[in-house]
Amino acid sequence: MIIDKLHAAVKAKGFVCLGLDTHLSYLPERLKQLPAADAIFTFNKEIIDATAEETAVYKLQIAYYEANGLPGLQAYARTLQYLKSQQLLAIADVKRGDIAATAKEYAQAHFSGEFEADFMTLSPYMGFDSITPYFDYIREREKGVFVLMRTSNPGAKDLEYLESEGKALYYHVGDKLQELGQEFTGQCGYSSIGMVVGGTYHEEAETIRKRYPHSFFLIPGYGAQGGKPEDIRAYLGADLCGGVVNSSRGIITAHQKTVTGGETEQTFAAAMLDAVLKMKRDIYGA
Amino acid sequence: MIIDKLHAAVKAKGFVCLGLDTHLSYLPERLKQLPAADAIFTFNKEIIDATAEETAVYKLQIAYYEANGLPGLQAYARTLQYLKSQQLLAIADVKRGDIAATAKEYAQAHFSGEFEADFMTLSPYMGFDSITPYFDYIREREKGVFVLMRTSNPGAKDLEYLESEGKALYYHVGDKLQELGQEFTGQCGYSSIGMVVGGTYHEEAETIRKRYPHSFFLIPGYGAQGGKPEDIRAYLGADLCGGVVNSSRGIITAHQKTVTGGETEQTFAAAMLDAVLKMKRDIYGA
Repeated sequence: MIIDKLHAAVKAKGFVCLGLDTHLSYLPERLKQLPAADAIFTFNKEIIDATAEETAVYKLQIAYYEANGLPGLQAYARTLQYLKSQQLLAIADVKRGDIAATAKEYAQAHFSGEFEADFMTLSPYMGFDSITPYFDYIREREKGVFVLMRTSNPGAKDLEYLESEGKALYYHVGDKLQELGQEFTGQCGYSSIGMVVGGTYHEEAETIRKRYPHSFFLIPGYGAQGGKPEDIRAYLGADLCGGVVNSSRGIITAHQKTVTGGETEQTFAAAMLDAVLKMKRDIYGA
Repeated sequence: MIIDKLHAAVKAKGFVCLGLDTHLSYLPERLKQLPAADAIFTFNKEIIDATAEETAVYKLQIAYYEANGLPGLQAYARTLQYLKSQQLLAIADVKRGDIAATAKEYAQAHFSGEFEADFMTLSPYMGFDSITPYFDYIREREKGVFVLMRTSNPGAKDLEYLESEGKALYYHVGDKLQELGQEFTGQCGYSSIGMVVGGTYHEEAETIRKRYPHSFFLIPGYGAQGGKPEDIRAYLGADLCGGVVNSSRGIITAHQKTVTGGETEQTFAAAMLDAVLKMKRDIYGA
């Protein structure tokens, strides 16, 4: 089960999910001369090389790559291939959700070939026949999914919090995912069907953690979106190994905030590693 | 407003939305020798050329292109560029739904540059701050969106039909979309914020059509998913111009069902056009 690999990475290296949401404006001057595909890939590779020993998994938000057209998607493919070559884990943050026939195409797209990742994110709006077509890959090819459950954006209140039959919509999603996930529970005790649970709203953290003891969480919302260290710890559970915590801009723009004078590959790498270590101190130290 | 162009196309040519969900297995033998990007693009171009006079809009389901990696996405880009060169309308069926910062990247990706389309499909699960970032493009660049409201797959019952505060989740989505859409109502009386409404469940068709008189519908589910002509007509409204009806496999595999003996560019084109005309007869004749 792929979740055993991710859980082992968290045990060994901590809970950091490093979000490679690479915007062109983040590129240092020395990379801006390169063709876009090379520039974006090199930026990502330098971050990966600098942080791999302290990072459990990398997450690529495909929107940032699509926004640069085919060269952006070339960089997306090369980054995933590089992660694989380094035995590092990757989440394709694509939030797909479509009818079963289409889901099969998405599974092929993101679980094999040049865009192959270890995990995909999925959106549940259309129901569970938009989720189950991915299960063959979980069963046979060591893949996993993270399905949107309760997100961290302000708009989460619009639909996810609507009450129906005595519980919020997101619990309808979570309860069903927990049931579906049982089949894919690894030796670590967590399922390869994980949930996206925003790291905000402390009052819910312990309730959600208890309700889904076998669900591994992908936790966005730390930093920019207001998730506080103590909230995050509650979502991670007692041993702090029940999920990964995403940070994107907070890490990958570190060189723009901290490096003064001439930026070099060395100062860039140091800024990235420092940002990862600071995030770990913030949350572990809480 | 882009919706005026789409409405005019429906008035002139009928309600067909032709889904270019191009699977490699659909390619005729004579195209299979070409490199994948050329083969997929040529297949699409021949369909477009054969059907343009009877088709209101083309819809590209991006999953089928991603499944073929970068060559697939090259064909995706070339198809969109070809449609634009022919003054034909295109829907990018990508069902995106993400936080506002990511939505801005998706809008740039699919409303400009090499993947530029006229409309995008969106998923509302994360709430309306995952929808509003697209509005600048509706306002300033003649673009539009279709947001998932009530879909046609069996799993639609899992979440979309949950009742909250006296109405189904999909009405929560639809009511809010109607409100947001007012700002973008065109001269035709419909809004550039459209809804995806599956063409099944006849009992709901008239209710939904009446509840959202200014919403233009993208209607999947005809044929394979069980939508019947009389259901479809109810969704289209009294003048049959309140939406477009998607058909994908039913049209683009027509050559595999109807052409006997040697398949050629001519018999291929004739099979596609016949399938479109048959669909129009089925629905208009009901």
